Formats: sequence, C-alpha cells, structure tokens
Amino acid sequence: MKRKGILIVVSGFSGAGKGTLMKKLVQEYDNYALSISMTTRAPREGEEDGREYYFVSREQFETAIVQDKLVEYANYLDNYYGTPVEYVEKKLTEGKDVVLEIEIQGALEVKHKFPSALLLFVMPPSIAELKQRLEQRGTESRENIEKRLSRAREEAAGIENYEYIVINDDLDQCVRQLHSIITAAHAAPARNRDLIKKMREELE
Amino acid sequence: MKRKGILIVVSGFSGAGKGTLMKKLVQEYDNYALSISMTTRAPREGEEDGREYYFVSREQFETAIVQDKLVEYANYLDNYYGTPVEYVEKKLTEGKDVVLEIEIQGALEVKHKFPSALLLFVMPPSIAELKQRLEQRGTESRENIEKRLSRAREEAAGIENYEYIVINDDLDQCVRQLHSIITAAHAAPARNRDLIKKMREELE
Repeated sequence: MKRKGILIVVSGFSGAGKGTLMKKLVQEYDNYALSISMTTRAPREGEEDGREYYFVSREQFETAIVQDKLVEYANYLDNYYGTPVEYVEKKLTEGKDVVLEIEIQGALEVKHKFPSALLLFVMPPSIAELKQRLEQRGTESRENIEKRLSRAREEAAGIENYEYIVINDDLDQCVRQLHSIITAAHAAPARNRDLIKKMREELE
Repeated sequence: MKRKGILIVVSGFSGAGKGTLMKKLVQEYDNYALSISMTTRAPREGEEDGREYYFVSREQFETAIVQDKLVEYANYLDNYYGTPVEYVEKKLTEGKDVVLEIEIQGALEVKHKFPSALLLFVMPPSIAELKQRLEQRGTESRENIEKRLSRAREEAAGIENYEYIVINDDLDQCVRQLHSIITAAHAAPARNRDLIKKMREELE
C-alpha cells in the first residue's frame, strides 16, 4: 500500500530556530515538501510567485476564505497569510509529508480540519538560551524581546495540544530526531484508517 | 535531566509474534527491561522464581490485589497473573523502558493507572498471513484457530486505544521500528511534564 503523506505543523517560540530546522529537514530527506503560503503582501526583492509565496490580491484572498480553500489563515500587520488546501492535498496524495510553520492558533485550526495532522513544538534548550538567542540577534529592541517572551508564555500555555516536543540544541541532531519522530508518527492508528478497515473486514 | 523510563504495553493478535519481538528488542538495546509477572500457577520445569515469574500463593496474590500492588491482573484458567507495581516503578526510576505484554483489557487498565504508558499494537502483515501462521504451528485444532480469530476480532475493535500500530513482517526491521517509535514517544508532552513545568516557570 502506498504511504500517504501527513501534514506536519511546526510551532515554537520565536528564536527556537524553526525555520532553519525545516529547511534542513527538507534538504536532508526527500519525503518532505514545504507548504507554500498565500499572501496579500507585496513580493520582496528576489521573491518569486509560487516559490516563497503565492502572491494574490486582497479580493482573491477573501474569495479563497469564503470558498473554504485555505487550511488556515491569519491577518498580520494588515496583510493576509494562509495555507492553500489544494497544494497541501496535492503533495499529500503524492506521498509527501507536508511541513507547515505556523503559530498555535493556526495549528489548532489545522488540527480541526485535518485530524490526522501531526503537531510538533520546537523548544530551545532552555529559556536562558532563548533570551540569549533573541539578544544576540542584535536587531531586537528591549521592548521587542519582551513582546516575544510574552508571546512565548501564551504559546507555552498550549503545548499539550502538540503531539511531540523537540528540543533544538544541536541542529543536525534535532533534524534527525524530527525525521524519526515523523516516521514513527506514521504508525498511529489515526493515520492508518484504511489499513485498520481492511484488517477488520478480513477478520469478519 | 536524566531521562525517566516509560512503561510500554505491547498487545496484538495471537500469532503476530509479540513474544519473539520483545525478547529481541531487549537483547538489541540496553534501555529496556521486560516486566516480570506474578502468578499463582505452579512453576514449570526450568522456570525460576523472579526470572520467568514471581511464583506466589493464591493468598499472597489476593493480598497484593487488595493492597493495590498490581498494575493490572487477570484470571486465566483458574490462575492469577498480574504485573507488580514495585518492579515496574524501580526499573522506570533507573531510566529503563519497561516492556509488558498483555491483552487489551489489561492494557486499558495500565493506561488508567499510568497515563503516560505507551500502548503498542503488533499486527501480522495480513490476516491471511495470520491464519497461515496459526495453521503452520500444527499444534492448533480447527476449533482453537477459530477461537483465536474470534479473539482477534475483539482485540481489533479496540485498536484505536493504541498509540501506534506496528506491522511484524520482517523481525529485525520490526525491532528497529519498535525502538524508533519508543524513542519518539519519549518526546510526547505527557512524558515531559517536568520539563514543561520548568520551562513555564522560567518564562514567568
């Protein structure tokens, strides 16, 4: 039986290194596809439609909302960002595990629409380390760091909604751990309904 | 932080090869301990108290039940069989993952007492294969095979209570898969309460 892909939602504190992790995961193993978001914000220099984002007008985006063509969406700094169902479904059918980086509200929305989605939470080795990473960026004001930490408190409150917690200490090791967690997750009953159904029928 | 062990319950159809799998798992990796059951049945030739089983009297067993010293127990062919809490707790504290082979009723009892227990279900590659394995044993009457299949139907009805399904096609491959599934399962929030608590405190 051909293995169907699963939808993987990665959340975690800002500064936990999610982006780097996911890029590396997709590079190292060939069973992954990064989800491509749809947005109403203008393309930045070097960004290409259909690669970084699908760039659409506000009207197109709102039509997609009404027609239920998004797995989840959010409005950030007056621009829409969302995950088109069509791309996700296409990749899952091809057998790809589709990786999606979003925050907790979006993650819960996804889980509601795709009950077999896998929710992963990436954590820094410690909160001290997280603060240090945020400060070392150099680009963050004191106030911004405080905002990010307060946001982290909100995210931490919802951590029990995630199936696994991954600690991003060493990048390579963490990528390997992510991959083996995802491989294991394929063996959950909720992701093997067809197999279970077939087995039950044969037992009758 | 020292990794605490988890309690692993392995169930599955008779003929799925659970026993062989678990023996091999414990041999191949050093983080496992097989749980030792307590029973009122008489020791068979070559069996040693504290190795195959803890052999006790009916009175001792019933005292253990009353004193809530068993993770689960069952009565089979007029003999008691049960899992002593003390041995399990000791091994878990040492950091061992304790493996326990029981059927679904017992598995649900364990999950009730140890909410962080990991429930695994072992399946044969197919039902045709299962029937063939049962018939090849040669020791089973037609009637017994029918009984085992009817029992399999009951077990199959409860499969959604298990966290993972493992298909035992190739023994070595299945042992590796079991090990990586158990490794991944350590990363579930329910098995990292201390870590989450600490993180939340540090974020305050």
